[in-house]
Amino acid sequence: MSATNGAPKRIIFADTTLRDGAQTPGVSFTPDAKVTIARALAELGVAMIETGFPVSSEQNFSTCQRIAREVGHHMTHREHLGEPPIISALSRTLEADIRRTYEAIRDAPRCQINLFIATSDLHLEHKLRMSRTECLQRVRESVRLARSLTPWVAFGAEDGCRSSYDFLCEVFGVAIAEGAHAVALTDTVGSCIPVEFHRIVKYCIENTPGSEKAIWAVHTHNDLGLGVANALAGIEAGATLVDGTMAGLGERAGNSPLEEVAMCLTTHAAHYNATHQLNTSHFTRVCQMVSALSGLALAANKPIVGRNVFRHTSGIHQDGMLKNRTTYEYLNPAEVGATSDALILSNQSGRSAFLSRLNLLGYTDIPSEKSKRLFAKFKNLAQTKTEVDDTDLVNLMSDSC
Amino acid sequence: MSATNGAPKRIIFADTTLRDGAQTPGVSFTPDAKVTIARALAELGVAMIETGFPVSSEQNFSTCQRIAREVGHHMTHREHLGEPPIISALSRTLEADIRRTYEAIRDAPRCQINLFIATSDLHLEHKLRMSRTECLQRVRESVRLARSLTPWVAFGAEDGCRSSYDFLCEVFGVAIAEGAHAVALTDTVGSCIPVEFHRIVKYCIENTPGSEKAIWAVHTHNDLGLGVANALAGIEAGATLVDGTMAGLGERAGNSPLEEVAMCLTTHAAHYNATHQLNTSHFTRVCQMVSALSGLALAANKPIVGRNVFRHTSGIHQDGMLKNRTTYEYLNPAEVGATSDALILSNQSGRSAFLSRLNLLGYTDIPSEKSKRLFAKFKNLAQTKTEVDDTDLVNLMSDSC
Repeated sequence: MSATNGAPKRIIFADTTLRDGAQTPGVSFTPDAKVTIARALAELGVAMIETGFPVSSEQNFSTCQRIAREVGHHMTHREHLGEPPIISALSRTLEADIRRTYEAIRDAPRCQINLFIATSDLHLEHKLRMSRTECLQRVRESVRLARSLTPWVAFGAEDGCRSSYDFLCEVFGVAIAEGAHAVALTDTVGSCIPVEFHRIVKYCIENTPGSEKAIWAVHTHNDLGLGVANALAGIEAGATLVDGTMAGLGERAGNSPLEEVAMCLTTHAAHYNATHQLNTSHFTRVCQMVSALSGLALAANKPIVGRNVFRHTSGIHQDGMLKNRTTYEYLNPAEVGATSDALILSNQSGRSAFLSRLNLLGYTDIPSEKSKRLFAKFKNLAQTKTEVDDTDLVNLMSDSC
Repeated sequence: MSATNGAPKRIIFADTTLRDGAQTPGVSFTPDAKVTIARALAELGVAMIETGFPVSSEQNFSTCQRIAREVGHHMTHREHLGEPPIISALSRTLEADIRRTYEAIRDAPRCQINLFIATSDLHLEHKLRMSRTECLQRVRESVRLARSLTPWVAFGAEDGCRSSYDFLCEVFGVAIAEGAHAVALTDTVGSCIPVEFHRIVKYCIENTPGSEKAIWAVHTHNDLGLGVANALAGIEAGATLVDGTMAGLGERAGNSPLEEVAMCLTTHAAHYNATHQLNTSHFTRVCQMVSALSGLALAANKPIVGRNVFRHTSGIHQDGMLKNRTTYEYLNPAEVGATSDALILSNQSGRSAFLSRLNLLGYTDIPSEKSKRLFAKFKNLAQTKTEVDDTDLVNLMSDSC
């Protein structure tokens, strides 16, 4: 499972916050919210922005159209990024859908139709009531039609991870032969473990006719808490395009959060032998924006961007942080755009954090005996509340004069 | 990275919700809350319950003592579990700490002292200001002392993943020689990727003198979104004890959530060739309890137990679910104790979900033309609100009579 040697490969990110993320139960973005998020994604450095599923409603169509018209046109010279982002929208493999989808996004500088059809026997039989042969035919015709409209056509095998490996290769082979420039393995129900996902991606890359002509993408879900690990396993198996959402929005337990995948690549660039072009210092701001506009609160312990991830309460951790931040902080807050952390004073805190905070407040050179008494008082106070703040400390010091 | 063949190995779970979880910024469990959670963990089937860090405060000490006295004594015949849970508490490798920790938990049916010391040069040099030789000496003396007090002594190498592999093996070897029955690799700062964590666990198991006499444990954090994947990588490398928290409470981005690791094992038992003894149907209830008592809200998309994980909004997903649940639901809600899901009607919904809900409400045999008109009305309504509920539908049908 180690990356091949040689020049670092470039991993690109596709974002589906506005499509799969918009399918999050309880989330309903306004058109303005979607445009605002799309702009932020373009600035963040996302290579492909999926704007929605135009045939699902008139509003969805018109919002995709607004984004295609308003986002990315000035970005002919994005720093480090070169070209403007590709604006895409999701389409079933139906002629009417494809034409309508193209109408929605055709005004973008570069527009991409994201075709999908389920490839698992379970979905074919129970949902689509279609044979494998019919499925192949639909892929062939739909990619061909889409390619007649735009040079950028992506094809995703829905429920790919529960599909026959060999049928997948056949389907991808047809999509590539018809001109799809990107093909995606999707763990639609989030059922894969990393070893399994690695195996299926590797198999498809190695056994799909014309494999080398396409960009291989992965689209993973977090139902088992493995969305990020599966995306990384896909990269280790040869994929170079990761499709996910900001802050992990999406159906059920959500998609893999792009900020987490990206920070794994940033911090372990040597292992993955990879680079990427996201401006990681935007992560905190963009995730907070998506959270506010979706109404979906970020968990306090959400990796990378949660409000707790750079805060420390236990005495031992606070003592370590005061001596050397890297003892308990692996990520650099500035790198992900987080504002400075705080050592929280609580009943878990030790004397070094307590005295350090007093120092910051101007109480210096406290004699050892007095500091012991003060610390005991502090501990008593800390039993009565979750967090002891600066006002509490000033009161405590006043009482002790 | 595949499991060895042969009889399935039994994976056991240690819970540190009441210790590492209690160090979550903003969380301050009351003593009663801790006892309530400890009881729930025992019923869930957790093998080892870490109750706290007794030397950190008087209250922490007395709460550990209450749990040791009140939890698990009647559980001499837990169904499928056999023995009562081991009640443990965390201790530094200092004589006074060890004796005080033992006092806190000695009244449990089986009490375990969880010793830890940092083993990375970074922590030794900057935090502990101690040489490797002194560290080894401390491990030797502290395990020996702890073993003179109780037969159950676990030893964890703090910041293990950033330590020298060979020094780790030396430290673990000393701990095992002195009688530690469990030794733990800890990714204290959550910096590991699965391949790396697998490598370090495997190396230690293969190169530690007396390795076969101890239970190998893993303690992982979620800073990069890889807590679960790392725990699984540890199991694949030979570890059989997973230490984590309910709902992923813990320092920064939290510990690996036990319910996620357990469901990976349950759903992929063949790959891991493993069994476990957690009663998974308790997961939803226990995580909700921990969330309520900690004040830390569960994210709507929290895997396994979030409120969104069995809800479906998009038209295509709802259509699939109505035809066959497994098309979009990999986990069985009952298996994790979730109450029945709902297909949410929103502007993403398709006609099949809309008509199915009308059927449930008693509106059956609607003619095709009428259903088209009703669906168009529904779509208009759905643009104006996040979720269309049953009252809305009844109103819509009344208006359409």
